[in-house]
Amino acid sequence: MADNLTAVLYKIDDLRLENRPIPEPKDDEVLLKMGSVGICGSDVHYLEKGRIGDFIVKAPMIMGHEASGTVVKCGSKVKHLKEGDRVAIEPGVPCRYCLFCKEGNYHLCPDMVFCATPPVHGNLSRYYTHAADFCHKLPDHVSLDEGAVLEPLSVGVHACKRRGVTLGSVVLVLGAGPIGLVTILVAKHMGAGHVICIDLLENRLAVAKECGADYTLKRNATDDVDSVAAKIEEIFTVKPNISIDCGGSQRTVNIGFKATRNGGKFVMVGMGSNEVTIPLVAASAREVDIIGVFRYCNDYPLALSMVASGKVNVKRLITHHFKLEETVKAFETARKFIGNPIKVIIHCNE
Amino acid sequence: MADNLTAVLYKIDDLRLENRPIPEPKDDEVLLKMGSVGICGSDVHYLEKGRIGDFIVKAPMIMGHEASGTVVKCGSKVKHLKEGDRVAIEPGVPCRYCLFCKEGNYHLCPDMVFCATPPVHGNLSRYYTHAADFCHKLPDHVSLDEGAVLEPLSVGVHACKRRGVTLGSVVLVLGAGPIGLVTILVAKHMGAGHVICIDLLENRLAVAKECGADYTLKRNATDDVDSVAAKIEEIFTVKPNISIDCGGSQRTVNIGFKATRNGGKFVMVGMGSNEVTIPLVAASAREVDIIGVFRYCNDYPLALSMVASGKVNVKRLITHHFKLEETVKAFETARKFIGNPIKVIIHCNE
Amino acid sequence: MADNLTAVLYKIDDLRLENRPIPEPKDDEVLLKMGSVGICGSDVHYLEKGRIGDFIVKAPMIMGHEASGTVVKCGSKVKHLKEGDRVAIEPGVPCRYCLFCKEGNYHLCPDMVFCATPPVHGNLSRYYTHAADFCHKLPDHVSLDEGAVLEPLSVGVHACKRRGVTLGSVVLVLGAGPIGLVTILVAKHMGAGHVICIDLLENRLAVAKECGADYTLKRNATDDVDSVAAKIEEIFTVKPNISIDCGGSQRTVNIGFKATRNGGKFVMVGMGSNEVTIPLVAASAREVDIIGVFRYCNDYPLALSMVASGKVNVKRLITHHFKLEETVKAFETARKFIGNPIKVIIHCNE
Amino acid sequence: MADNLTAVLYKIDDLRLENRPIPEPKDDEVLLKMGSVGICGSDVHYLEKGRIGDFIVKAPMIMGHEASGTVVKCGSKVKHLKEGDRVAIEPGVPCRYCLFCKEGNYHLCPDMVFCATPPVHGNLSRYYTHAADFCHKLPDHVSLDEGAVLEPLSVGVHACKRRGVTLGSVVLVLGAGPIGLVTILVAKHMGAGHVICIDLLENRLAVAKECGADYTLKRNATDDVDSVAAKIEEIFTVKPNISIDCGGSQRTVNIGFKATRNGGKFVMVGMGSNEVTIPLVAASAREVDIIGVFRYCNDYPLALSMVASGKVNVKRLITHHFKLEETVKAFETARKFIGNPIKVIIHCNE
Repeated sequence: MADNLTAVLYKIDDLRLENRPIPEPKDDEVLLKMGSVGICGSDVHYLEKGRIGDFIVKAPMIMGHEASGTVVKCGSKVKHLKEGDRVAIEPGVPCRYCLFCKEGNYHLCPDMVFCATPPVHGNLSRYYTHAADFCHKLPDHVSLDEGAVLEPLSVGVHACKRRGVTLGSVVLVLGAGPIGLVTILVAKHMGAGHVICIDLLENRLAVAKECGADYTLKRNATDDVDSVAAKIEEIFTVKPNISIDCGGSQRTVNIGFKATRNGGKFVMVGMGSNEVTIPLVAASAREVDIIGVFRYCNDYPLALSMVASGKVNVKRLITHHFKLEETVKAFETARKFIGNPIKVIIHCNE
Repeated sequence: MADNLTAVLYKIDDLRLENRPIPEPKDDEVLLKMGSVGICGSDVHYLEKGRIGDFIVKAPMIMGHEASGTVVKCGSKVKHLKEGDRVAIEPGVPCRYCLFCKEGNYHLCPDMVFCATPPVHGNLSRYYTHAADFCHKLPDHVSLDEGAVLEPLSVGVHACKRRGVTLGSVVLVLGAGPIGLVTILVAKHMGAGHVICIDLLENRLAVAKECGADYTLKRNATDDVDSVAAKIEEIFTVKPNISIDCGGSQRTVNIGFKATRNGGKFVMVGMGSNEVTIPLVAASAREVDIIGVFRYCNDYPLALSMVASGKVNVKRLITHHFKLEETVKAFETARKFIGNPIKVIIHCNE
Repeated sequence: MADNLTAVLYKIDDLRLENRPIPEPKDDEVLLKMGSVGICGSDVHYLEKGRIGDFIVKAPMIMGHEASGTVVKCGSKVKHLKEGDRVAIEPGVPCRYCLFCKEGNYHLCPDMVFCATPPVHGNLSRYYTHAADFCHKLPDHVSLDEGAVLEPLSVGVHACKRRGVTLGSVVLVLGAGPIGLVTILVAKHMGAGHVICIDLLENRLAVAKECGADYTLKRNATDDVDSVAAKIEEIFTVKPNISIDCGGSQRTVNIGFKATRNGGKFVMVGMGSNEVTIPLVAASAREVDIIGVFRYCNDYPLALSMVASGKVNVKRLITHHFKLEETVKAFETARKFIGNPIKVIIHCNE
Repeated sequence: MADNLTAVLYKIDDLRLENRPIPEPKDDEVLLKMGSVGICGSDVHYLEKGRIGDFIVKAPMIMGHEASGTVVKCGSKVKHLKEGDRVAIEPGVPCRYCLFCKEGNYHLCPDMVFCATPPVHGNLSRYYTHAADFCHKLPDHVSLDEGAVLEPLSVGVHACKRRGVTLGSVVLVLGAGPIGLVTILVAKHMGAGHVICIDLLENRLAVAKECGADYTLKRNATDDVDSVAAKIEEIFTVKPNISIDCGGSQRTVNIGFKATRNGGKFVMVGMGSNEVTIPLVAASAREVDIIGVFRYCNDYPLALSMVASGKVNVKRLITHHFKLEETVKAFETARKFIGNPIKVIIHCNE
């Protein structure tokens, strides 16, 4: 263990690589030699804007939260892991004491410590310590790259599983970015009857098809809501009973809400517009519930079971690879859409 | 059976009493000698505006849907009722064939036939026929007035039961009109730990107290949302895990949404504003679900069990009584808030 | 439309083919030219024993309830079907009026009319009328044979979907007969993480593998319960959170119950032993729920979506084909396990 | 703080009072001056038999798990409590790390540390330390005696709330012992439409009436199952949709199962017979689920909200009071039913 090269965001547009001390695991932690770390839209957002909502980068912050690694040392109380185990790192560790934690909703814990969400450091570095029970052991045939992708995949699992996608569901996915794509993968793997994906860009819809979307629909930015909703019903012959908005614009909200069957659910995963207008009377009279989705909770094992099954090709989502030393270039690729990236991966120890 | 005096809405501000033929029950129907009929806000709305949303009074329509009566004749297939039985009339009869009916959501049936919703006639008349299985037999100690009030009470049951109010729930009720009041009655009867009611008017909040609200809070129309939400948290010490909006204005939506605990539910019963703005990112990040509520489904028996228990005083909600012959005066009372009415009842056979 | 050859069970071991009048569809019915009809274990049971529990063959009864057909005539109120449509026939038609029907549990309707359950006639005949809304239109690429198999497949859907199988579930299927096999198909299609199947016969377990079981375990009739349960945990490394008993013997109940994880579910689809002994204190202390499963309810569309997806090979379950004229021989094949049949299909109009 | 008198079970029929050191609270614990401690059937069982199932008293064990107390010292990380706060003590503290804990089922945690369950010590002593987050602060108007009774009350809450009792439920309670009585209290407080209680003893049924049972039925030990079930249906006019067995004998299981409506639930709280026979085919065909209930999970706050509401008189359950010095006599009273005790309370600091 020589160096601990680490990617630190100092302020807007100021991302630096520097050497930091290798930390020591606590009793219930493991020290990890980091493997693959994906770049998420939120990482790029912090780099560009220095904040997301009330989360503001006030002090230098280590980046990285879509990650995998290899155990190099175990704290004294750690039983289920041993040196050499390869793991996916679930990046948020809750307090374990509050009502949310006790009720099985640890993702809503107000004292959550979540990687690369200010002021908490992330794990884009050579070495990193993490709560052992939030490290999920990978079977031999699942790669560290796939382990890193479990993070966005878990968002898709949370959106689909906890919000009612099941056998025979008719699902509308709005947006074919990384979250839209994992949502399609999950919905199909859970037996959804039909999945349709709409987006503005043909090349993204082509990947949606590869991920299992039964139908894709290119909309134009100027298409009116009613005609898009009507087209969706025409394609499906029935209305979606669950629509999942991975875009978050006023337009996608309107389309998704309008298209959803009475008694159905409109799920919002996207973090786009701060405020949107919804048709209140219609929401009530049609009993279309509007459901928010935040991160994940007990979903990593399910995401892992999907990948381990061999039936879901998450590797398709990984389009670019960089070394840790090339972190700045990796972020430029993600930020400026150089080469149409879906998921950019940084390899921390190569 | 001499006359069948009937209250018919011809058009805006044109409500007439006229004699109509006494109908004959079909095989699965009963003929009822009508008892008590309450006036609902929607009735007044049709009288004043001639429409609610897409429901437009194009032809003369018989009013009345909050009703009770006494069986005078049974169709050939009717088994559970007999002549002389006093019943509460659930006013909507679904198609019994569609997917919504089969899934236990008959209130969403697109072919629902619902009293006094254009173009369907209501039951504000001396005699009326109805599907026997949507007539709920009243025990001897439950009055016809109480039977009529089961209709709004069922709205409260639907809002509370199907949306998760249970033992220990902390419930915020926004608005102390008739629906707000029945919601308070139901929530308390289901064991809610704390119920707080907010409204603009002190006299309405006084009735909310009588209905069991643990706390009431008078807000002013100009109070800002954050300060009202903060006051609510201060009173409860914890945040409501379910907020039920019986108002439907942009202001009540904002207060209710803001006040609700992370992972909680914001339920909309009100049919006020057509469109409202909601904080999309917050809804998603806080996982506060926005839940629409429409009428009721399998809730009449539960509403009846509440009243029959003797523990819930729905009579408190009935403030004014009129004869069928006084229908126009009864509607004026309801419409112009003469004497602060909560529920105005018309007696069809006295 | 010449004849209406029909298979009628007169009494034990007395199954006859005879010509019957072609019936006329009622307003809400369709007349069907019958396609494929599968033989179910219950059919064989009636042939052998003349009864199942309280259902006793007292008068001649037409056999057949796993069926598909082609619409040849529509009742006056039928809208969603037209002449020439090929359909799967859901064999039970409920009363549409009782509380069970209204609550979305029509399979529990006490007035259910179910094909080939005494005294109700089945559909093993040339022509047959059925409630149109219980006829599910097949897409062009789904065959009449597959349409017939939707019946047992729906049992599997009911067992899995309504009892909690979902993404990542660890499922133990006890018994590799037809119901066990469809349960495996459904569980895998819904994203179950691991499915293990145990049975006494290697050749049945081989088909379980083909149907998607991740693991199979041959047990011997004399193996003790604890060692089988231990082997299951060893294979899975975790305990099943849902065990589905498609056998119904005291032994399978014991194994399934013992093997299930605390807080899990033990589901009984099998109709074997009348009475079994369960460990009461353990059931309570471990919160393993014992869940009964009866037929299906709103599951046909889901079963159809599975087959229509092209990802599930239900044709593998069909091992033998006969003409309607060969009905007696077909039943002999099913009854005496001639050629290891899984599903024997009778073609009614070939 | 002079002595720490403590009640220690050495072996069968050997319960001693002895002085033990006052413990020091850890960072997340509080030191409590003990208030009221109730005697539970399990305590008496350990005294008489030295074991319950696999839990065996191998070393001297401090008794007591239905308890309340007053905070005298807080660990360094404790925020929500302060010296002088009166609390109810939830007696089981889980590991906080396992899947059960993360999923909101901490009561199933395999590493649960539960008071007075061998080899874990209880809290029948002058002073005791406990995890602060499992100490529930009592409002001023709730007494320490009531705080102790929250323990059995939470069992009733767990049985009712998590198993579906709600507004309008028809509930059959089998057995009018302490758990049966709290179950009645909870079911009525949650708005159950009808609660019937059956027992062998008239004096116990009289208390059931006081606790809110709408009907009571005395059965004789020799009454046959069918006639008791028939009487229950006669009284209710409808069948119970949930039956809660607080007895645990073969006879009560048979009655409860038989009496329950199709599609209903049979809940077992009792820990009587080790094994019982159930009608397997009926359980499946009628879809009556058999549901185990173990302790409680997130139920203490709900039990407290019931008591704090002032609407539930749990004091009625407390029939006998003793000082800590009289512990042996208190156990004799509970064990030999001297004076028909329901709940015997020991006061630890008077």
